Amino acid sequence: MEIGKVVGSVITVSKIEELRPVKLFLVDILDSEFKLKNDFVVCIDTVGVGFGDLVIVTQGSGSRFTEISKPTHTDAAIVARVDDYNNFLGER
Amino acid sequence: MEIGKVVGSVITVSKIEELRPVKLFLVDILDSEFKLKNDFVVCIDTVGVGFGDLVIVTQGSGSRFTEISKPTHTDAAIVARVDDYNNFLGER
Amino acid sequence: MEIGKVVGSVITVSKIEELRPVKLFLVDILDSEFKLKNDFVVCIDTVGVGFGDLVIVTQGSGSRFTEISKPTHTDAAIVARVDDYNNFLGER
Amino acid sequence: MEIGKVVGSVITVSKIEELRPVKLFLVDILDSEFKLKNDFVVCIDTVGVGFGDLVIVTQGSGSRFTEISKPTHTDAAIVARVDDYNNFLGER
Amino acid sequence: MEIGKVVGSVITVSKIEELRPVKLFLVDILDSEFKLKNDFVVCIDTVGVGFGDLVIVTQGSGSRFTEISKPTHTDAAIVARVDDYNNFLGER
Repeated sequence: MEIGKVVGSVITVSKIEELRPVKLFLVDILDSEFKLKNDFVVCIDTVGVGFGDLVIVTQGSGSRFTEISKPTHTDAAIVARVDDYNNFLGER
Repeated sequence: MEIGKVVGSVITVSKIEELRPVKLFLVDILDSEFKLKNDFVVCIDTVGVGFGDLVIVTQGSGSRFTEISKPTHTDAAIVARVDDYNNFLGER
Repeated sequence: MEIGKVVGSVITVSKIEELRPVKLFLVDILDSEFKLKNDFVVCIDTVGVGFGDLVIVTQGSGSRFTEISKPTHTDAAIVARVDDYNNFLGER
Repeated sequence: MEIGKVVGSVITVSKIEELRPVKLFLVDILDSEFKLKNDFVVCIDTVGVGFGDLVIVTQGSGSRFTEISKPTHTDAAIVARVDDYNNFLGER
Repeated sequence: MEIGKVVGSVITVSKIEELRPVKLFLVDILDSEFKLKNDFVVCIDTVGVGFGDLVIVTQGSGSRFTEISKPTHTDAAIVARVDDYNNFLGER
């Protein structure tokens, strides 16, 4: 999984059936210094997040292992909000 | 998933059975500033899109979770057209 | 999927059972300007291609969804020969 | 799989059910000279590791093939602690 | 699949059950000019290889489609030794 920041949302009309009831957010993934990689992923929200939140993103088949994302064809899901983290990179 | 722009199409004759009835589009993926990455993906169209459209692309096994792509061996599908989006990257 | 060019072949003796009867080609993937990325993939040929051909490559589990590749442990397959393509990148 | 170093941990409250009882570590992946890539992965710990440990990380569907990670939607798991390694890169 | 060179091995004590009886090698992947990418993968050996051998590596779920790797949670396996190859990149 990766840590990302919710930086936007996507509105689609002509999408296929399975994605209709879900929210799609733009999540920019963080590098190991917690800076945005400028490389975003369109994620199904399975938690209930807001703009600016730090979140955990699962990609690949694992993204369809939640109640909300199971019937969809997604390849990325927000599966948790990050409340805090410890980073010992300074020790290097 | 990722946002991409439909930039071309591919015509194949000698392709294997499963891909025959589907349209294959070239989609260039966007970075977080909505610029083309110059890195395209050959996608099955499951929505009905046109050149220049912004679309959502699913890669990996999720691309075979639609009615149209299920019987194929694809690893990428256009699953929605993007009608609008909000981007709060300017807040950074 | 991606477009690549067949640039070589691989001969293996001590390979495991499942890969014995198949041909393995080196395919260099193209970027969106149709230049070689210098990043090749070893692919099972499910179509019957030759050196220099432009081909479509499926990676991941989708590469095992063809009659020829199904019993193998491959993660990449040539699934079509590209006969023509339209590219509207010049419009950008 | 890849070798990484445990560089931090993540605390989440509003995470979905499946991830509740597991520990999430930040693991920075190593390049072939055993330097940190500054590209970390959020991993489920299936072994019992500590900060600074060198570990083996499995990504993708394989990360859910352990007793601890099976019921989760993870895409990355720590599956072993590295006790020693031989590196013959100097021979190149 | 990709071509790589066996450049080292990994010794783990505290690994989980499924990986116990298998050998783990460090494989550095080659680019299209057959130079090391300095980006290695920890692979299960399903063939019986030695240091310096050129090998074919399968990643993802395909790596668990061999007799040896099936019960494991690996995401990478050495599936063949490369005995020879033809490379027509010079024609470009």
